[in-house]
Order: sequence, then structure tokens, then C-alpha cells
Amino acid sequence: MIAKTHDCGRVTKAEVGQTVVLNGWVQRRRDLGGVLFIDLRDRSGIMQIVFNPDFSGEALAIGDRARSEYVLAVKGTVVERDPETFNPNLETGEIEVRVTEIEIMNAAKTPPFPIEDGVEVDESLRLKYRYLDLRRPEMQQTLRLRSKAAKVFRDFLDGEGFLEVETPILTKSTPEGARDYLVPSRVHPEEFFALPQSPQIFKQLLMVGGLERYYQIARCFRDEDLRADRQPEFTQVDIETSFLSQDQVLELMERLVGELMARTVGVTIEAPLQRITYADAIHKYGSDKPDLRFGLELRDITDLVAGSDVKVFANVAGSGGVIKALNAKGCATWSRKELDDLQPFAARYGGKGLAWVTVKEGEWRGPIVKFFKPEEIAALTERLEVEEGDLLLFSADKLKVVADVLGNLRLKVGKQLGLIDESAFKFAWVVDFPLLGWDEEAKRYVAEHHPFARPHDDDLHLFDSDPGQIRAQAYDLVLNGYEVGGGSMRIYRREVQEKMFAALGFTPEEAHAQFGFLLDAFEYGTPPHGGIAFGFDRLVMLLSGRTNLRETIAFPKTQSASDLMVDAPSQVEAAQLEQLHVRTVPKPQTKQQAGGPAPAAQTSVKDGV
Amino acid sequence: MIAKTHDCGRVTKAEVGQTVVLNGWVQRRRDLGGVLFIDLRDRSGIMQIVFNPDFSGEALAIGDRARSEYVLAVKGTVVERDPETFNPNLETGEIEVRVTEIEIMNAAKTPPFPIEDGVEVDESLRLKYRYLDLRRPEMQQTLRLRSKAAKVFRDFLDGEGFLEVETPILTKSTPEGARDYLVPSRVHPEEFFALPQSPQIFKQLLMVGGLERYYQIARCFRDEDLRADRQPEFTQVDIETSFLSQDQVLELMERLVGELMARTVGVTIEAPLQRITYADAIHKYGSDKPDLRFGLELRDITDLVAGSDVKVFANVAGSGGVIKALNAKGCATWSRKELDDLQPFAARYGGKGLAWVTVKEGEWRGPIVKFFKPEEIAALTERLEVEEGDLLLFSADKLKVVADVLGNLRLKVGKQLGLIDESAFKFAWVVDFPLLGWDEEAKRYVAEHHPFARPHDDDLHLFDSDPGQIRAQAYDLVLNGYEVGGGSMRIYRREVQEKMFAALGFTPEEAHAQFGFLLDAFEYGTPPHGGIAFGFDRLVMLLSGRTNLRETIAFPKTQSASDLMVDAPSQVEAAQLEQLHVRTVPKPQTKQQAGGPAPAAQTSVKDGV
Repeated sequence: MIAKTHDCGRVTKAEVGQTVVLNGWVQRRRDLGGVLFIDLRDRSGIMQIVFNPDFSGEALAIGDRARSEYVLAVKGTVVERDPETFNPNLETGEIEVRVTEIEIMNAAKTPPFPIEDGVEVDESLRLKYRYLDLRRPEMQQTLRLRSKAAKVFRDFLDGEGFLEVETPILTKSTPEGARDYLVPSRVHPEEFFALPQSPQIFKQLLMVGGLERYYQIARCFRDEDLRADRQPEFTQVDIETSFLSQDQVLELMERLVGELMARTVGVTIEAPLQRITYADAIHKYGSDKPDLRFGLELRDITDLVAGSDVKVFANVAGSGGVIKALNAKGCATWSRKELDDLQPFAARYGGKGLAWVTVKEGEWRGPIVKFFKPEEIAALTERLEVEEGDLLLFSADKLKVVADVLGNLRLKVGKQLGLIDESAFKFAWVVDFPLLGWDEEAKRYVAEHHPFARPHDDDLHLFDSDPGQIRAQAYDLVLNGYEVGGGSMRIYRREVQEKMFAALGFTPEEAHAQFGFLLDAFEYGTPPHGGIAFGFDRLVMLLSGRTNLRETIAFPKTQSASDLMVDAPSQVEAAQLEQLHVRTVPKPQTKQQAGGPAPAAQTSVKDGV
Repeated sequence: MIAKTHDCGRVTKAEVGQTVVLNGWVQRRRDLGGVLFIDLRDRSGIMQIVFNPDFSGEALAIGDRARSEYVLAVKGTVVERDPETFNPNLETGEIEVRVTEIEIMNAAKTPPFPIEDGVEVDESLRLKYRYLDLRRPEMQQTLRLRSKAAKVFRDFLDGEGFLEVETPILTKSTPEGARDYLVPSRVHPEEFFALPQSPQIFKQLLMVGGLERYYQIARCFRDEDLRADRQPEFTQVDIETSFLSQDQVLELMERLVGELMARTVGVTIEAPLQRITYADAIHKYGSDKPDLRFGLELRDITDLVAGSDVKVFANVAGSGGVIKALNAKGCATWSRKELDDLQPFAARYGGKGLAWVTVKEGEWRGPIVKFFKPEEIAALTERLEVEEGDLLLFSADKLKVVADVLGNLRLKVGKQLGLIDESAFKFAWVVDFPLLGWDEEAKRYVAEHHPFARPHDDDLHLFDSDPGQIRAQAYDLVLNGYEVGGGSMRIYRREVQEKMFAALGFTPEEAHAQFGFLLDAFEYGTPPHGGIAFGFDRLVMLLSGRTNLRETIAFPKTQSASDLMVDAPSQVEAAQLEQLHVRTVPKPQTKQQAGGPAPAAQTSVKDGV
């Protein structure tokens, strides 16, 4: 083999006149009157190589045998092209290499799809031939960005004194075991390891162990019905610190995010990042992961319409619900069909209906307008900043429902009106999450983030009076409407932990049964600590402008959790199972049986997104 | 909480007179006539803090409540100590902090063992309380070195254009499936994922995918009976390249190793590293991972004693075996018991016996001396460089047995004679491994490294005549007698692969059944490629001077593959198994049954150590 001297895409005019050796794949070949042109591709880009009887000699005949995706080594001279043959689409478009020697390093069958971006190919075919799909420039760019992002995380955290520590993949099933992947073992019959849903317990134990600053880019696992943006195995940047306050953690993470954006996509992020309380996020944007690239805020009008003749408003206001409105600026022109479609849209998010008003020629129109008193119209006009051409959308229900309906409507309208700057990266912290949520079925409080999430010092007294109002020192990082990170400060004092368990309805014995050795560990001098986990796959997706997590992962699973390339999962030899002391249970006949009992609502014990 | 300003171990004389806030654990407390001294420890080191009624006020009474491993925040002034109280064992031994404010951040129960290095504690107790064991300086140093080593690998490889790519943990069972951990799935009844024994297949597919340079610090899994230096999950630095020759790969890796040694332990390694062929390593050192920190080479004497009156020598030489000798310089003084103990030692490595000769007062003594002819003694004296006081040790058998016996004896004698410089790091490449080994039971060749390992170009003709003599382009990196890395160049041409499969006795159909999609992938333009994997745990062990892999891993498993801290593996709820469509098979009564059929000799398909 001739030893490679240059990458195809990195040869420049400075090399004109030099002899180079390139290695790469045949992207394209053209024969123009006995002269052979090949676009030779490697991961750096493309170089046009030319075979001409004048200077190529025997190499021409060999080159002529090359077809798409053949692997070539060529030696030749870099020359400037004729200006009229410049190719402005190529970085190397003003030069070419005149081939004098060639070796066909390997042949190739015709690939099942063209190795090019922007070609419509069924995704399952791409996934089956992932090793060919990976040759596309777009995939290579994404993997390069992913590698770079990991490097930036590591450089920054290492510079700040964080130690990278690997935590076990073969570990123990947790209280949220319903989503655990289990692993039988030859050595221990009838016992199972579990794959971690996150390294949460281990990172807290590392703080007990005095490491002070830990990070890991960690693989995590969740065996669940897959949504479009989930993978059974996913990657998170997992971080934990001791002796810092929440403000110090957020400030450190802001610098990290700043570094990440600058070094991966060249975008400067202004610090400090916007911080918005959970309560404000829900009230203004109807979401705890608001897309802040545009305004279009929801407005609460409960006080204005509590005594309204619009019965549903009065009823909802009277029974502790809220009424909120979204002013879709300039949308009074929506067709009747568009307005009618709002009802199923609202229903999808649990809404029982959606009232609307259009403002046309100075007049309010719509089914509920006749019930408004003039002073209500005046007050609404002021609160909602109503102008000619606006479309007002009203939702009345429990806060959660109203937020879901109008929050999603806000996104829809924002998109429709073109309010979203697709090139912007708008980060914010959502802080002050509630510590506890009320589980209507179980009739008890459950931890919103984590049974070890630390309450606000100012709210500790509420354990005795109104636990639902306690704010946690928990925070999410949102980017363009996606949650890209989440974490909390942890409880480290025994008396607070006891109050927390009591609020969750656990006796000390129950708490110990569930959290065992972790509570033991906390008895031996636990420092104040807290951390965060970033969803690495999703971050890479957003930074690379992709819309699908699978495009950010070299070898992803499908939505039904299969690897189409290696054909996994798959059946195994009976002897293998015998050694593992397990037996399969024949596939049930109906889907209902297959599901088994639905997993109960779980107490989450981890950071993450 | 008072916000921390300094690390305990990083305050210096330059800070004398300044107010600092430290956070840490109580290492030790002494009360000397009403003055309280506490050694406060954090991950950086120890600072003596002093409570005195003169300057500490109320802080003294609070500090007095602190016991071992309490977590404190203290504010105070840095002062120089009286010279007579300097502590030369502490980096900070010439200063102390006079405490003016204190907060007990957390109390601690008395730990089950002292948090100190060098204390004899049962390892299982350490592992159960790993979060306390991690507080020991030695553990912290090892984890810091481990983190640093990972960073050096990444910095170097990133700088050389390698992309970090994550490959799946949930993948498919391989031909070496007997050691695979299997994972059932809720979504796919009766099918299993397997955890990877290495990312071998994926890294080769990344080369097919045009990535050109890949690395990953990858978790790998092997469900096997555990030896002292194995863990069921282990970490390897996995590397693959395209378009390089073996020499180029080795040269690149030598620069990597140089960087690693310089940045982790401050040792300069001279490049190029010694390269020794497999054949030479076996002949001279009796091992394919020779400890080159000392000489004491084995010498072949088959030619000298083939016609000897020592019957076993003549018989062995006549039946294709070898006779080798080790000259244990100056060991003629060994006692009769020491000499007798050599027989069971040899037996442990498969030897049927071990002949010895002492050279005392110019005379050869020992059971076989009387059979030597004078000219044999003369020839042996020259070949073995015999001097007064030497002990000659002879082994005669098949090469493998002789190498095992004398290779291990060489290590024993080297240690006993103090020939080994324990502070040295002696690296070497072992190259030219045989491509194929003869499986006596199966009566066929098996791949020594890998069915895709590339033969030497010069040896291709031997496929037809003498396949056992073909050398592979396969290499191991050895350090101080340990294999710390291993890899090979891969076959990328179809005709070579076909010859290889034929040599292994596979029909094309059998080959496809076993390696399926990988062979498909190779049809689409595979570049020449090759790589290596470093055993990260073992490297860290050697660099940190530990003798046990468990000391290099934050949360290791025991030799019986259990995690004593989290209690894994463990029994799980029946409902969980039901959802996974599996059932356990009750523990068999006898050990024999428990083992199941022993896994057959396997064809390895991966780099690694």
C-alpha cells in the first residue's frame, strides 16, 4: 500500500505542484472523452482526482475499474483547475490531483442507497446498513460534534477539579425497578443484577466518600415503551459536588454551558442565564420547559372573569381552578376550520374545550362574547393587550390542564406565526420546583424530583402545615423548549431527611427497607452536596440541528428497542440460559397478558431529563 | 453555611494572616489543657485547626462536640506554628488555623474502621463500607490517577484526530457467547440482548463507516469464574484506525504511552519501545508477556544434550521437544528443601520434573551430573555462562511446558535475587504472534487473536503449505510482565478472509452463520484497518503501584462477582420477571449440576488483554 500523506478535504492551493497520496472512497466517477474524473471522499471531504492517458499511464486502466464506494489509494500531483471548471460546492473545488499511481485497496458492491445527504431513504434501511449511513457527511459531522462536546465537558470539568469516576453498570434493582433491565448471572443462581437508570446513588456515595467533585459521561438504561425521543440506552453527563450552594452549582454549570456553546457551535451565551421559577414558568408559558425564543405569554384572567356570566369561567373560578388566555396576535383571520380544530387540540392535552374570540373591525366575535359585560371586555382588553386582528384563546380548568392546553397552543401559534428564531439557542434555568406532588390515586405526597432533594431552608416550617407548598432546591436547564439538564441539592441532615420521609408517608422502617445502605452511609459524616445531569443525546441533537435522537447516536435502537444492524435482541442457545439458571416464558397470546401488571407510579431517585 | 474559601491541603505560608473558611472531616482531635486541636481533612490534605478560649469564643464549645468524621465548616486566621510544633509529616505542617467561627455541618457515627492508610482491615468490610474506604488518601490518589490517565488518553487521541464514539452496551450475543451476560427485555419476549465483551465488531464497522480514527474508554463485560485480576465489568481504551500500517499504529501508540507516562507518573519512556517477536519471547523468557526489568534469560540446550546419557533429555529431543536451562546465578546455596520444592513448582505449570545442578567449589553436583559427558559439561558451561556458585535448572518437554515452567521459575528467581527494579516501567511490544493455533481436541486450527487478524503479507503462501507457521500482524503491549494492551491489523480483502476461514475449517456458509452482517459489511468498500485495546484497570494498577485491580475501581465487585455495598446481584420481585417473560430455575443441589456444560474453547473476536 502507498502510505497516505494528506486528507482529501485538507489539500489546499498551497500544495499545488506537490506530490500527494490520498486514500478514500469513490463518491462519483465521470468519463469525459477518455479522461476519467473521480470524486474521492474521506472523512475530511472530497478531492477530484483525474486520470488522463497523458500523465496516468497504467493507472488509468486500473482507475477505470473503480465503481462507487471502491477504496482507492492514489498518488499524484496537485494542480490548479481551469477557472471555468472551478466547483464552488467543494472546499477543494479550485484544485485537482493528477493521478500517476493507483491501488484499488478494496472493491465494493453497489450500496443499497446513495451515500449522500438529503436523499429520502427509509430509516429502517439506513439502520440496517448503519455502517454505510455513517459515511454520509451529515452523520460524520454529527458524530464529530458529539465527540467534541464530550471533550469540552471533560476539559472544563477536569479544569475545575472534577474527577472522572466510573460507576458500575452491573448493579442493584432500585425502587423504580419496573423500568430496570435485569441481568442473570452464572455465578449466582436466582439473583439478578440491574443496569442503572442513572448513577445517582453512586454519585451521592462518592460525595460521602469525600471525592468532592465527580463527573462521568455515563450510559444509563431504561426498559420502557419508547417514545420518539427516548432510547433504551442513553448517555448523560453526570455531575456531583460537595460544599457548594445551589447558586454556586448553577454559576459553575453556566460557565460550563458557555464553554460548550462557544467551542462546539461558536455561539456566545450571556451569563447569568435567565432563571425562572417553576411557578412562573407554568403561569406564563404553561410548561416547566418553556421555549423562550419567543414571547406570547399566557395571562391569568381568573380575577377578571370569576363573576362572569360565562358559566364555565365562574364555575371553574369558584372551584379553585384558573382561567387563562393566550392572545394569538393577528390570528383573527383563522378560518372556521382552524378554529374548530382547536377543540380536538385542547382535548389531546386533557382540556374540555377552548373558547375563542376574534377581534375584527374593532368588534369582539365568538360564541362567548355575548356573555361578557362591557367592563370585562375593557379589563380583558387591557390585561391581554388586545388589538385589531387578534385571536384570544381561553382555557378554564385545573391549573395543570390549562397550562398543558395553552402551553402547547402557544408553541403551535408561535411556530405558525414564525415567531421562533430557529438559529437561536435560548437557555434558562427553571428553579424552585415543588418538593412534593400530591398523588391523587395513592392519596399521599410523592417526591417530585427525588426523595433526597433538599427543601428550601425558608420552607422547612411548611412540613408541618402545608407540605405541598415546599419548594425544592431543584433545577432544570431548558434549551429551546427542551429539558437538557436536571438536578438538585440533596438532603444531608438526618432531621430533614426524617421530615421528608414522614411527608412521603414512610415509617423509618419502610424508608430503610427502600433506601437501605444509602441511609446507612448518610450516618457517617455526609457533606452538603448537590449535582446535575445533562441529557447528552438531546444536547447533541439540539446543537447539531437534528430532530431525532437516533441521528446523534452511532448505533441506535429503533423505537421498538431493536438494533436492526446486529439483529438484537435475539434468541439465544438453550445451553446459555441453562447456565444462567433462567428459562423463558412462552410468548403470551394476547397483548394484554404480554404487558403484565402496569408499573405503579414510581418514586424517582435520580437526576436527569 | 459559611462558604468555603480554600482547600485544607492547599493553604500555604503565603496565606498567613488571612481569614480562610475550610470545610472538611475530622481526622483526629486532641485536647491539650483546654486547647482543642483538630486535624481537618478534605480531598486535598489536612490542616490543623485550633480552638482556644482566647480567640475562639463560643466556637470552642461547639468544636468540642466534634468527633471522628464529623463534617465541619470553620472560619479562622492562618498563623505560623511555633517551630517546635512543626509537623514534618504534613504539607501544611508549619501553619495552623485559629478558629473564630464553626458550624457542624454533619455528625458521624464511629466508622467501622479507621479512615487511614496502612491499617489492616478485612477487605470485605472495606468493600461493604466502600464510601468510607474511599476517604483514605491512597484510594483518593488512585482515583485521581485513574481520572488523570483517562484525560491523557483523551487529550492525546483527540489531538490526533480520533473521534470518541459510544458503542452499544445492549447488543447481540457473539460466537463467544458462553461468557456473555444476557439481558431479557419487556418489549421482546424470549429474546435477549447481550452485554459486549468488547466493542470489537462495532469499531471495525466504524472503519467500514469511514470514521477513520475511533476511540472509546469502554466498559466491557465477561461472566466468568473470576481470577484475582479479573472483574466481571472492566474498562478498556479501545482504538481503531484506517489506512495505517502496523508500524504506523505502533509508533502512534508509543507516543500515546509516552504521553501517558509523562503526565501521570512523570516518567520518560524512550521511543521506540523494544519490540520482541513472540517466538523470541517464548524462547528467551518462557512467556508472551515477559518481565524485561531483568535478564536471566532461558537458554536452549537441545542441540547440546540431544545425544546425552540423561535419558529424558535424549527422549524429549528425539520426540520433537526442547530442553532449556536457566542459570540461577549464585543460587548454589539453596537448601535441599528449596531444591525439593522446585518439583511441585514445576508440576503446577505442567512440568513432569525439573533437573538441577549446583556448582560449588568448581564441581557440578546433582542427581543428573553423573550422566553428563565432560564435553557436554564444557559446552553447557559455555552456553550457560556457568560460574562458581551457580544453580542450573533444566526442563525438558514440549516447548509450551518448558516455557511455562522455566518462565515462571525465572520470575521466582528474579524476585528472590532482588533483580527487579520495582520503580522501573519496562514496556515492550510482543509482535508476530502466530495467526493460528492447533486445537488438539478439535483437531483443527483456531484463531489465536481473532478470525479477522491479518496475516503477514510474507506468510500468505503458507496457507496452502503450513498454516501453523503464519505470523499475524498482531501485537501485545507488555509492561513489567503484564499484558496491558493487545491488538491487530485486520483482514480487509475478501480473498484473504476466505483463506482464513478455510484454514479455520469453516465453509463459507458456516462463516456467514457465525459472522453474518459483519461479512456483509465488508463487501461494501472496507478500508485497511487495525487497532488495539488497552486494559485500563490493569494500567492504572501498575501506574499507581497497587497489586489488586479492586483498588483501582471505585465500586468493584468481589472475586465471586458480588457488590457487597449495594448487595448485588440480588433477588427481584416476581412481577418484574413476569414482565421480562422469564422464570428462574431453582438452584441445583450439587455443584456439578450448577456449572452446566463447560463452555467450549472459543474463537476470540476481540482486542484486549
